[in-house]
Amino acid sequence: MGSRICMNTSCGAKTTVQWKKGWELKSGEIADLCYHCGSAYEKLVYCDTFHAEESGWRECSLCNKRLHCGCSASVPVIEIQDFGGVWCVTCAKISGCHSTKRDGVPSEAPISEKYSNACDLQNTQLSNSQKRILLVTGIS
Amino acid sequence: MGSRICMNTSCGAKTTVQWKKGWELKSGEIADLCYHCGSAYEKLVYCDTFHAEESGWRECSLCNKRLHCGCSASVPVIEIQDFGGVWCVTCAKISGCHSTKRDGVPSEAPISEKYSNACDLQNTQLSNSQKRILLVTGIS
Repeated sequence: MGSRICMNTSCGAKTTVQWKKGWELKSGEIADLCYHCGSAYEKLVYCDTFHAEESGWRECSLCNKRLHCGCSASVPVIEIQDFGGVWCVTCAKISGCHSTKRDGVPSEAPISEKYSNACDLQNTQLSNSQKRILLVTGIS
Repeated sequence: MGSRICMNTSCGAKTTVQWKKGWELKSGEIADLCYHCGSAYEKLVYCDTFHAEESGWRECSLCNKRLHCGCSASVPVIEIQDFGGVWCVTCAKISGCHSTKRDGVPSEAPISEKYSNACDLQNTQLSNSQKRILLVTGIS
């Protein structure tokens, strides 16, 4: 058991009341985070807390939540959309368009009118003619 | 063969001298692009050309090239780094840290001193103590 260190580059704590898990590293290992940083990660406010001044921020096209794109800590909570923009994972799940669908895992039924057509409308930046073409060609 | 349309939302051309391939859609299909937009995509200047005013831009930590994060068109040319920041795919390949390594495909030998230690230094935002810990624990 080697020494541990909080892998939040702005923290670097070597001791903590409890080590927590962060994002997945390229190696497949999981980043170590101290209790404070790991708690922010668990609450989905890690980037809001530690990367507020960094570049790369976009907004969820559905709920306008700020999302830190191009950041390993935010990869799991961002859905990049086919034709522009990003969704937060919460909106993606509610809409039923979360990428788990790709793996054949059925998504839950849409729970609000706001999101009920979100899958069909995920190409919100497309013109009506473009949407029609996609519908005809079966791309969704 | 249904009608085709350029899937660049700011274009929407229905005719072109030659259809070109764009990014991969969630469905696994490939976006159709007209010759003009597809050429920009092939030359890796698609986002520079069409998304210059959008949010989400960051800079490659090594060469400072602007990268449009949180955009389906740029996903293939951006390497999100474990401990912050992004690299352009060119720098990632030169450094030998391109993600193809994860698939067991040997990367080419580093070709310049600038990049020769880039893999070890990909955590450029880490403190020296954090780098030491990573070295000891074997995380690279």
